[in-house]
Parts: sequence; C-alpha cells; structure tokens
Amino acid sequence: MAKLYFKYGAMGSSKSAQALITKYNYEENGMSVWLIKPSADTRDGADILRSRIGLWAKAEIIRPDTDIFQRFSQSCAGNCHVIIVDECQFMSPEHIDQLRKIVNEYEVPVLCFGLRTDFQTKLFPGSMRLMELADVIEEIKTMCDCGAKATINARIDSDGYIVTQGAQVVLGGNDSYIAMCHKCYINGIEEHKKIKLHGQK
Amino acid sequence: MAKLYFKYGAMGSSKSAQALITKYNYEENGMSVWLIKPSADTRDGADILRSRIGLWAKAEIIRPDTDIFQRFSQSCAGNCHVIIVDECQFMSPEHIDQLRKIVNEYEVPVLCFGLRTDFQTKLFPGSMRLMELADVIEEIKTMCDCGAKATINARIDSDGYIVTQGAQVVLGGNDSYIAMCHKCYINGIEEHKKIKLHGQK
Amino acid sequence: MAKLYFKYGAMGSSKSAQALITKYNYEENGMSVWLIKPSADTRDGADILRSRIGLWAKAEIIRPDTDIFQRFSQSCAGNCHVIIVDECQFMSPEHIDQLRKIVNEYEVPVLCFGLRTDFQTKLFPGSMRLMELADVIEEIKTMCDCGAKATINARIDSDGYIVTQGAQVVLGGNDSYIAMCHKCYINGIEEHKKIKLHGQK
Amino acid sequence: MAKLYFKYGAMGSSKSAQALITKYNYEENGMSVWLIKPSADTRDGADILRSRIGLWAKAEIIRPDTDIFQRFSQSCAGNCHVIIVDECQFMSPEHIDQLRKIVNEYEVPVLCFGLRTDFQTKLFPGSMRLMELADVIEEIKTMCDCGAKATINARIDSDGYIVTQGAQVVLGGNDSYIAMCHKCYINGIEEHKKIKLHGQK
Repeated sequence: MAKLYFKYGAMGSSKSAQALITKYNYEENGMSVWLIKPSADTRDGADILRSRIGLWAKAEIIRPDTDIFQRFSQSCAGNCHVIIVDECQFMSPEHIDQLRKIVNEYEVPVLCFGLRTDFQTKLFPGSMRLMELADVIEEIKTMCDCGAKATINARIDSDGYIVTQGAQVVLGGNDSYIAMCHKCYINGIEEHKKIKLHGQK
Repeated sequence: MAKLYFKYGAMGSSKSAQALITKYNYEENGMSVWLIKPSADTRDGADILRSRIGLWAKAEIIRPDTDIFQRFSQSCAGNCHVIIVDECQFMSPEHIDQLRKIVNEYEVPVLCFGLRTDFQTKLFPGSMRLMELADVIEEIKTMCDCGAKATINARIDSDGYIVTQGAQVVLGGNDSYIAMCHKCYINGIEEHKKIKLHGQK
Repeated sequence: MAKLYFKYGAMGSSKSAQALITKYNYEENGMSVWLIKPSADTRDGADILRSRIGLWAKAEIIRPDTDIFQRFSQSCAGNCHVIIVDECQFMSPEHIDQLRKIVNEYEVPVLCFGLRTDFQTKLFPGSMRLMELADVIEEIKTMCDCGAKATINARIDSDGYIVTQGAQVVLGGNDSYIAMCHKCYINGIEEHKKIKLHGQK
Repeated sequence: MAKLYFKYGAMGSSKSAQALITKYNYEENGMSVWLIKPSADTRDGADILRSRIGLWAKAEIIRPDTDIFQRFSQSCAGNCHVIIVDECQFMSPEHIDQLRKIVNEYEVPVLCFGLRTDFQTKLFPGSMRLMELADVIEEIKTMCDCGAKATINARIDSDGYIVTQGAQVVLGGNDSYIAMCHKCYINGIEEHKKIKLHGQK
C-alpha cells in the first residue's frame, strides 16, 4: 500500500539533503525517482535541487498551473517508482490533491519534504494540505541555540531583529531565516533581542 | 523542557482512552493532572470524559471565551503537573496559543488528544493551530476496513452514504462517522457505495 | 504486508492497558483477535490479562513447549485477524520465531507488548529476539520521578534499596519494581539511596 | 536532559550519510562534534568515515581497549557538544556503557549509527547493549526488492546464494551483504534462490 509522506522540518534541518539521500537510496536499489519542486523556489536556478552539505540533483519544476496527476499519467507512469518533492510548502493545495491521487491510483509512494510554517507560525498552503491528507507525518529535527528542539522559522531583518509583519514569501529580500524554539522566539520578540545568525539564509 | 503534544487520530482510534490512561499513569506517579475539554463536545454530559472501552473521568469544561492561561495561572499553577486536553479539535486557535504559553512559562507539559480533520478532510480550528505550534505531532493509529491505515473521518448519512457537503459540526444530527483510508473514501464517494458501520457514532 | 511489532515499555507504562485497548479497537472493527500470554506470567491467575486501570480480558496461556505456529495453524488460521501478546518478554526466542513465521506465511499482524530489560539492564529472552526480528520497534513511554523518561526497571528490596544481584525472574518474592531513568538508577545504586515507591509492584 | 540514541538501519540505509549530515547540522549551529568509529571497521582506511553518496569526514578510531569515558573526560569535555558514533555495532558493550556514562555525567548527547543484526539475525555486541540502554531507538529505513521494509542483512556468497553459517565478522572475504525483508530472506534460503545484488558490498 503506497503512502503520502510529509517530512517537515524547520530551516536548516537538512530537508533537501534528506530528499537527495532518499533519492540516492531508491536509485541504488534499481528504482526510478521523479524529483520535483515548485517554481516558487528559485533559490538554486531553474531546476537544480541543492543542499548546503554539497549534494545536488536535477529536479523538474512544477508551475502553479501544472496538473501533476496528468503530467505523471502521461510521462512517468510505468517507469517511475517513487516521487520525491522538495520545498513542498510552496505546492498549492490542488498539487497535493493531485499527488494524493497518484498515490491512490498508481500505488506510487510520494515523499514530500518541506517547511511546516512561515515566519508568523502559520502553515504554508502546501503544508496545510499535507497536514490534512498525508498518511505519515514525520519531523526532521533541528535545534534551537538554547538546546531545545526548533519548531519556528523566524524571519530576521538586516539589523538582527525578528520580523512579525509582512508577506508570507518575499523574493529577493534582505531578510534571513533561522530555526528557533517557540520560547526563544517569543522572548526574542517581547524583549526585542538581537538574534545571532549562523550563516545560513 | 516541557512540550506541547498533539496526539491526533481518526474516529474510533481510542483517543479518549489514551487520554484517560495517560492521566492514570501520571497520577499513579504522584502527579496532579488538569483534565479539560471544550464545551463544543457535549457527547457525555456536562463534564464527563468517557471512552467506549468503559474508562471515564471528570473533566473541566472550557468555554469559547475562557482564557486557559489566566484560568491556569489563578487556580492550578503550582499544584498541577500536566494538562490533558480531550477533543482538542474543538478548541479555538486562541485556546491553543494559551496552552502554548502555559508550556513556555510554567514548564508544564500539555497533551492534546483529538481529531485531525473534519468530514471534508479539512483541519479543525484547534487541530490547525496544533499542527502549527505543537512540539510533538503523533498519530494514534486505527484501521480502515480494507486493512490500510485510516486517516479520513467520513460522515455517513442515515442511508449509509458518504456526505460531502454541510456544516463542519452538526449537533444532534442523524449522521454517523467512520474512519477510512483516503482511497476507500474517494471510491466510496465516486461509486456511491453504501458504507458498513460498526456501531460507533 | 503484515508486520511483527514490539511495543516495549518500562514497569508501569500501561503496556497491558495498551494491549487491551488495541484488542478492543480491532474487535470493534469486526476483526477477531487471538490474545496470548506466556505461562511464566501468573500474576493474575491462569488466563486473565488485567491492567491496573481496570481493564481485563481472557487470554490463552502459552507454555514453554507450545509451538505457537502449529497451534495457530490448527486452530486459528482463517478466523483470526490479529495476534496480541502480553508480557512478551517471557516468551522464548523460539516462540518469537514462530510468531515471525505466522506473520510471514499467514499475513497476520502480531503485536507484542512487554518489558525491554530486566533489573540488571539485560534484555529478556523474548525481548532480545524481538529486538532482532521485529519490523516495528515502538516505545510506550513512562516517566522517572525526576521528570526524565524512564528506561530502567529497578528491583527494590523490602527496605527500599535497589537490588543489583539475583535471578532474572523471582516468583513470589518480596521485591518491588519501579521504572527509573538511567541516571537516577545509577545514582540510587552508588549513593545507596532509599527509593520511593508509588504502590505498584 | 541529554540522551543516548541508537539509530539503526540495515545495509545500504545510508546510516553513514545520516551521521555526516547530523555532524554538519550541529557544526553549522556553532557546536563542536566528536566523531568516532570502532577500529573493527577499516573499510575506508584508518580514520575516514565515508558514505556511498560522496560525503566524508575524519573520525577518531576507538580501539577495543580504549576507555571512551576517560578519553572524553581528559580531552574533549568542555569543548565538545555532541558525540556521533558510526558503525556502533562493532563497539563493545563496555564502550556503550562508557558512552552512557558520558551522557549521564556530562549531559552530552550521544548519537550511535549502526546495524541492528548480523547475517544470522543476531544482535551485534554493541547493538545489543544499545538496545538495552538507549533512551531513543530509531530506525533508518530501507527497502527490500519486494517493496517491503528491509530488516535483515543477508550475507551473499560469490555465487549469489544466502550464507547461513560462519563467523559474525569476516574481514577481507568475498561475500557481499544485502538488506532484505524477513520473508524474502527465508524464502531465499528455503528455495536456494540466487539473490540479485545492486553493486553495494
């Protein structure tokens, strides 16, 4: 019985590295993987999925109006054993419904890697639909500087302060993101603390 | 480090039994438990939390306008070691924020048991906020008749057919609910199948 | 694909209650459960499985020389959908191999509930074979008095001190058992501390 | 509260890649990692830990007579935030006890990556002690060719048949290892099937 997986993690939890290792493992076992990512994520050029540790692979870009079920039925069904999705938080709810339909009708497992929530602790559209429909919800863990588990993706402005207002996605901005636990996040806002970054954006 | 837990499960997955056993275990270890449930759930009378297997306990009812953080600070802080919430899907997002604040400021763990999604596969308000803020998201599993894991809470009308339209919560209606896997749920709708119930409502 | 599960927990983690709730859930879904326990456990009379919270059910006793695979093939195959084992730590390695064979050949899931280790932190015979062969290893959690997760089953003599020498299983003795974290267990031994019990034995 | 982790997986489940990514994540957060492996594993030269996907790092070799607790106390305590162990199945039970002592006394988390069982489905010495003492036991999953989860590490001779007799560890031999589910493993033995390898050894 194939399943729909949501493997969520905060910023810097090595989600893309996990996606790429999973792809490697399937392929090493002689299976064929369809690696996709939404067009909203243009961090690494048109079609490269890259992790900070140095791994990378070519991915197919899914545009907002692409019907993934149709695309899969026409081009991949029969010669694709598993679908891996990176940055799945930027998929639309309809995309997730289409992936769900592939799992049901083709018995192909779909593994979605992505963020849970935005800088205001709200689910992204793709994450929300996955939280509703996934058969398996699994956390990829990372840590807050305080040692607790990080669950929040804080947006940090160029002066080092936590941002609490603004658009969910800002392309080409100067803000950084950092994973924090909820307690440090709230303290950081209430006490207007300067947050130490570690280089990642 | 205390944590906020969301232990979600479909209809009939024994969530209330799990809540009551957890309460029993804490109390057996000499700890004090505050058991609460939202007023929207009036299934078992004003303030009794009851599981089908026969376990029960008195719970405090939380009304929509109750500030749980304030209520806890004034009455329970200092002599309560853990909070257990049943039917947490009916808590408001504000309630979940208040529970989150108790975890952060009092270092008291909060364990929330409830449904993930409604009969249209949409998150309930309380479930959505928990999916955003919980430190630990854990599934209480149950099975579809086909043997696969059940993830959907289907609403079944008095003739035995899956309902796809209507209000999220219907009090005093004649509909039943049953846990199904997504595939059987979709098949049941598309083929207008009569669904076999097992007695639970 | 049926699976062999090892659901282990320390003393007082409500393993028997979990076994009984699981049985209830399967039966509520119209499935037939074979509930068994090894004869080494005579805590509750010949054939009753009882949990401290008040749940109970009749179980079939498996003696050391019973071949569970043969017993299942002759009497249960065809009208049994799942096997639930309580106190599985007292099963022999051969018993676990027989259960594994049932999973493989009859596609019937087997859920084993029991202790991980004895009072000297050594695996029990049944637990060891399950740690080797189980498809899913899952912890039923409980807490040490210090708030950390309990992983050790300490044997406490009638004066309240931790026992470190003796037979793995003592029937009819005056010792009690309590779940502790490893740190408190080691401290308790090294500092010869008197351990507070909570009533369970 | 620091913890002792056992992250076990079958052959080819990318355990070393996971160990290296975990190391990378800690270091990216400004923390210092002590990476160690037992001398029994000489697969990649004296002191390099290498994963098939291309990641690698220098590791310190732990010899059978090294006291890891003493070594840590003298050289690393105070400037090491986490210990990562690869090929932990080859550690001795005493090594695991020493790691457990570091967790308890220094509050430093220890993450052990390794195999669960040998080619005869028996726990390795290090794996057994970890199954007894770990605070968290987590599986790194991989798949059998049949699509089920692989849990067995089958030893395959140069003709492609499953080996069932011999020493637990053979250095410099011509045998290969492959991860299989228990059912395919047993079928492979009973039907003397030729097993298809995928290149890994």
